[in-house]
Formats: sequence, structure tokens, C-alpha cells
Amino acid sequence: MADALRVALAGLGTVGGGVVKLLDANRELITRRAGRPIEVVAVSARDRTKDRGIDLSRFQWIDDTSALAQQADVDVVVELIGGSDGPALTLARATLAKGRHIVTANKAMLAHHGLELAQAAEAAGAALKFEAAVAGGIPVIKGLREGAAANEIGRVYGILNGTCNFILSKMEAEGRDFAEVLAEAQALGFAEADPTFDIDGIDAAHKLSILASLAFGTQPAFEHVAATGIRHVLGADIAEAAALGYRVRLVGLAEAGKAGLFQRVHPHLVPIDHPLAHVTGSTNAVVAEGNFVGRLLLQGAGAGEGPTASAVVADLIDIARGEYGPPFAMPAASLVAAEVADAGERRGRAYLRFLVEDRVGVLAEIAAAMRDAGVSIESLIQRGATADGHVLVAIVTHEGPERSVAQALERLRGSPSVAGSPLWMHILG
Amino acid sequence: MADALRVALAGLGTVGGGVVKLLDANRELITRRAGRPIEVVAVSARDRTKDRGIDLSRFQWIDDTSALAQQADVDVVVELIGGSDGPALTLARATLAKGRHIVTANKAMLAHHGLELAQAAEAAGAALKFEAAVAGGIPVIKGLREGAAANEIGRVYGILNGTCNFILSKMEAEGRDFAEVLAEAQALGFAEADPTFDIDGIDAAHKLSILASLAFGTQPAFEHVAATGIRHVLGADIAEAAALGYRVRLVGLAEAGKAGLFQRVHPHLVPIDHPLAHVTGSTNAVVAEGNFVGRLLLQGAGAGEGPTASAVVADLIDIARGEYGPPFAMPAASLVAAEVADAGERRGRAYLRFLVEDRVGVLAEIAAAMRDAGVSIESLIQRGATADGHVLVAIVTHEGPERSVAQALERLRGSPSVAGSPLWMHILG
Repeated sequence: MADALRVALAGLGTVGGGVVKLLDANRELITRRAGRPIEVVAVSARDRTKDRGIDLSRFQWIDDTSALAQQADVDVVVELIGGSDGPALTLARATLAKGRHIVTANKAMLAHHGLELAQAAEAAGAALKFEAAVAGGIPVIKGLREGAAANEIGRVYGILNGTCNFILSKMEAEGRDFAEVLAEAQALGFAEADPTFDIDGIDAAHKLSILASLAFGTQPAFEHVAATGIRHVLGADIAEAAALGYRVRLVGLAEAGKAGLFQRVHPHLVPIDHPLAHVTGSTNAVVAEGNFVGRLLLQGAGAGEGPTASAVVADLIDIARGEYGPPFAMPAASLVAAEVADAGERRGRAYLRFLVEDRVGVLAEIAAAMRDAGVSIESLIQRGATADGHVLVAIVTHEGPERSVAQALERLRGSPSVAGSPLWMHILG
Repeated sequence: MADALRVALAGLGTVGGGVVKLLDANRELITRRAGRPIEVVAVSARDRTKDRGIDLSRFQWIDDTSALAQQADVDVVVELIGGSDGPALTLARATLAKGRHIVTANKAMLAHHGLELAQAAEAAGAALKFEAAVAGGIPVIKGLREGAAANEIGRVYGILNGTCNFILSKMEAEGRDFAEVLAEAQALGFAEADPTFDIDGIDAAHKLSILASLAFGTQPAFEHVAATGIRHVLGADIAEAAALGYRVRLVGLAEAGKAGLFQRVHPHLVPIDHPLAHVTGSTNAVVAEGNFVGRLLLQGAGAGEGPTASAVVADLIDIARGEYGPPFAMPAASLVAAEVADAGERRGRAYLRFLVEDRVGVLAEIAAAMRDAGVSIESLIQRGATADGHVLVAIVTHEGPERSVAQALERLRGSPSVAGSPLWMHILG
């Protein structure tokens, strides 16, 4: 039997605890699969005294997290601290500088510093692995980096945030509105006390930028992901979408074309016969479209102790087996800085929803704005007054450039007939 | 740039041609991802003169396929000949004996000789890779071997034969019977002239035995897969299933438990809210249930030129990157010969369909047989006479041991009231 792979664990929250539990529970099996034991030798976290339900006394406790990188007997550091910068980044840099492998679940750090860290890993001949950073237990990093590696990828897209999907599914199933369901999700622990990163699409955008890099051979470019969350989706929108044969999902989508790289996280109408329409609750799913493989779908649990730990330990097994290479599927020097595609040039169909005053001429005003901007209307539904006295108008457009839709909405901005901001959802094509 | 990975291609049918086309079409991208060029240097097939729509003049043509293993300038042999024995096996053995890597799409060869070949590969320090052997372009081998490697897998199951799923989907959508749809599928090229391997579940059984080995650390044991195909499924069965909230799918399922390893390919009733119920046409899908990751679903094109070539080249890229190890996820010596579980002990729900004579006492006879064998009936539907004068009786049982169901059917065997053999489908739980 080869020597054990010795692991230092930074961060003992849900995922860190899960990693310890998994390595304990499946010890013998993992040793057989990895060809050698995988052993935690040192841990570091903020609070040594907290009861995590696991016996930590067998591990060396290191107070200074960044010192984990320097421990003499460590082969791999597992970074589960989180945060794009700060202690996580310091530790990652120090680990790679020391020539040691790093496994991380930190999507924010990779979205912001992925290129730098990949360069450092390659320079050191060390692994930088991050299966747990995107879509939890689902092997999407591996799926793109290796499974679909022979393909030119046209698009990669999916449901990348379990909290949002949980909320949207519940709104759909129970006909309720966002704020109410969010509050319940928070009470149940399915949403954070500060849910901004999740519900405003930032978390999904971090993940999307990583997938896009793997899919297209581009440098991670989080700053070019246009992210909109689900705060403004009404129960009524979900009902209208259903009547039209769609479900509402927060979709992160990256597309590479002649116009450049396009990255967006946005609530979408997903046709009922598309697999993503059947992804409910906190499940995640990723679709990659390759020029030879066609449409690949990978689906599973996108978060939580067990699934995320499963992904972290899968990375450790790869390292134990010696099966690792360039983190973003090709040498970092080979990753190109992508041109950013102009969303206005994109063609698509849109769902537009207005809350308007219940009086003569409002529909004509909206219709005129559409006409003047060159937006062709496929269907328009007006529903009776809502609780606050407004009337709901939902429009589905024919395919056309997004610029025209933006212009139509601009024409209506400030109109006294329209309450608040209209909601614009894209229709997944 | 590192040296090219030099490939010899044995077999130039649909998949072999696809591999050549893919390596041509995505050449630059593959070189970036693999870190080195992947180049076909020699080919061998039955007929040198056949027009395959690809330029073969740039490759060395070898008449004697088995000589590919001996070519001085070859790093990897890609075996796309097919057949469990014969030239494919001879070539695989010769390639590994020579210490060279082999990539194969040959599920039959692996189902029958997987253990021997894995041992030979390990002894030679060479790769034996077979992503294309199961579920075409979907990275299910990688998903089990690597993605879910940290997990104890409870079950692995899925839709493993595109021809059967195409036929069942078409029967479902058009309310037609098996023979008619099969004939049409053959005319369209979606089913072989001799469709036995597909429609009788043999092809799916080959694939299942490979998945089971990867999932459970057992030696491939095709001989212990109980396979039943879809020949006896009527359009009426699909309609009854739909009325009960199910769709009919040919499911290959392997399960490891205290009683041993259980492997079965059989038509199943799949609940409408299960992802497999939404897999239509020739699409394949595989579910793995792990003790930490939960339920993972991988879905995509299970056959065809592009998807299968995509899987073959993914294997070549892994080899070019040096990312390969034990073929069945752990050293061959570590794979155990599993105890075979007794299907009679298994508990489950069943769909039983009888075609009976339209006369007094028949239902009582069936009900008595169920009662005497201890089978508890959840629902029973009797429909008016069919075209040939029989009456259809469909029963759904409560959960119970399969042995009881087998006993009940045994009691009814030879009854003059029951026409032909009853159909027994399992309900996926």
C-alpha cells in the first residue's frame, strides 16, 4: 500500500465537518478506490471549542490557518473558509507557493483569482481542484474538463443556485409570493440570514464564470457576468408562465460565439419539455452543448454537507491517484481573455410583465412603445386588478434583438401608467 | 509542445469514422486541452475501398487488424470492432501485452473479459479506457469511477439502450404496439436489422455489468444479470401505466446489499415525477445513489457517431494528459466476486398484466392465485375485450417479496383462462 495522502483541513463548517464524516464513514472503500489512504492530519478553524459532532482530538489543531500550508507532513490543503479574498486567498497562495496541492470549494475566490491560482499551481506542478465550488456534489467540473473535453462547447447553462430554485419551486407549487417564501426558507435554514449572494444571482454568477472558463478556454471573467436575481418575480409571473407552457428558473448561461463570450444569470422561462423545467427544490443541474456530444445534462444535489463533501473527497481521490492536470482544462497561459459579447445584439424571445394603472390608454401606450422599438408581440395577457389596485400585463415577444426590448422599456420608463420597474425574463431557447 | 499521442484505429464504422471527423474538426481545441496533439497514424478495417466520407490516405492502412498492436509508432489502440471475442479481444490482449494503451467502445468484450483485461492493463502500466462502452457520450464511467468515487453506492440504474427507449417512447406517444414501431424504427435506421441484443436487453445487460463493477468494486459479472426485454410490452400496458401515473422504461438496475449483488434489466413502471420518466427518444440516462452525494443523474445521447466519438476522444485526452489509473476504479486484485442476491427475497411493487378469456370466474381465479401466494393487490383494472377477444386485466401489487409474485404466476401457468404469458413489470421505487 502506498503512503497515505495527508490532508490539512481549513474551515470546519458544514462542509468541513462533512469531509471528516465522509472520510470516516467510507474509509476502507476510499482507500481501495484511491489506491492509498486519505488521512486528515491537521485542522484549523475559528473556534476550537465549538461542538461539531466529530472527534477532532486525533488531528493536529493549528490556530493560524495560513500556517497549514507550512506543516511539514501535509500533502494537500483543503480550503473551506470561503470568501474571495482574505484568509482563503492567503492560504491558497501560500499552499501553492509551497508546492502543495489545494482543493477548494470557494467559487468566489476562483471567480476572482482563478487565473492567478491556476498559474501558481502549474508553476508548482501542484493540483488546484474545485469540484465542490460549482453545483455541489454533481461532477460538472470533471464533466466539462474531461467528459466533454473533445467538444467545442456552444453553450453551458444551468440551475446553479439551490436556494433560488427552492424558492421558485415553492412559489410555483404553492402560488405564493417571493418575500413570504424567502422568509420561510430562512426559518427552515434553506436560505442564509443575508441571502443577497444567492437571491441576487451573485453566487450563480461566480459558478458560471468558472464553468465558462472550462467550457470555452477563456480566463474566468466574473466581472462580465450580467447577474439579476429573483427578487422581482411575482407568484403571478410564475402562474402566467405556467399558462404559457413554461416554468420560471434562475438560469446561468454562458455562450461563446463570433461576437465573443456572453455570460448571464437571469430568471428565465424554461419550456415545460426542457429537462431544467423538471428540476425542483434545491437540486442543481447543468447542461453543456457540444458539437459532437450534443446535449449533456448533469443533475443532483447542489449544496449541503454530504454532496459538497463528496465533491471535495472526489478531488482528493483524483490527487491520491495522481490524476490531475491543468485546473481549467488547459494550461493557464493558453486561456484567452475573451471578447465580451454585446447583449443588445443577442436575439431571443422575452417575457415582459408590467403592473399598470387600471385606466384607458395604458395598453395602447405599452403597445406603442413596443412598436416604436421594433418589438414584435407574440401574445399579450391582461389580468384583472391585483390586491394593490394594479393590473398585470404580461407580454411574450417574438424572437428579436434584446436591444429593441431594452429600448421599448426605456421608452416606458417614468410613465405614470406603469408602476415600478417592469420585469423582463428571457425565454430559454 | 509535447509529442503527439499516436493513435491506431481498429474499425471504421460509424464510431471510427466519427473519431476521425472529431479529431479533424476540433484539432486545435483538443491539442490545447490535451496538452499535446492527438494524431491517428494507422487504421485497419475490413474493407479498404469503402467510401466513408473521410480521407484515409493520410493514415497507414494495416490489413491485419491484430498487427496494429505491434506498429512501432503507436501509443494507443482504439478498438471499435465490436464483439465479445474474436478479433476485438485478440487485439485488446495483444495491445496490452505490448504495454500500449487501449481505448474501446466494446461493452460485450468488457462484460465478458473486463477483469482479465484490467489485470493485463495494470500489469503493463497501460490505460484501459471505455467511456464509450456505456451510454455513448455521457461520462458515466468517469462519473462513477471519479465523480462519485467518495461514495458507497447503494444503487446504480438507468436507461441504457436508446433503441428500446425510442420504441417505448414512440409506443407511448402514438398509442401503437411493439411490432409495428420496431418495424418503423428499423426502416429509419434506429434499430438494427437483427435487433435481438437491443430489444431483449442484452446490450443493456452488458452495460449494466460494467456500471455495477465500477459502483460496487465487484468483478464484472454479466452472467448474473437477469435480462428481459420489451418484446411483450403492449401499447395497452403503456396506457394502463399512464393512467396509474407511470411511464414504461427499460431500466437496468444494480443494487448492492447484505444479500449480495443484484443486477437486472427489465421493463419498469417509472413514476411520472422521476427524472427517468422524462427521458424520451434514444436518450440515455444513468442514476447513481451515493451515501453522501445523494442522487446523481447523468443524461445525454447514448449512441450515434458524434456522441460515441466524443467519449472515445475524451478517453484519448485523459491518456494524453496522463490522467488514467485502474480501469474499474480500483486495482483489479481488489475487485471482489460478489455474492449473487436472490431476486425472490427482493421486496417491491409489481405491475401484472393478463390477457384472459371473457367469461365468468376468471377474475376469481386470478384473485385466488394472488391470495394463495400472499400477494396483496393495490389495484386491479379490467378492460373490455381486445381485438382478438381477450380481456385485459392489470394488477398493481402492494410491496412484497418477488417470490410471492412468482408463485402466484406459477399457480396460473397453464390455466385455460389465461392467454399466453402474463407480463410482469417492476415498479421503480
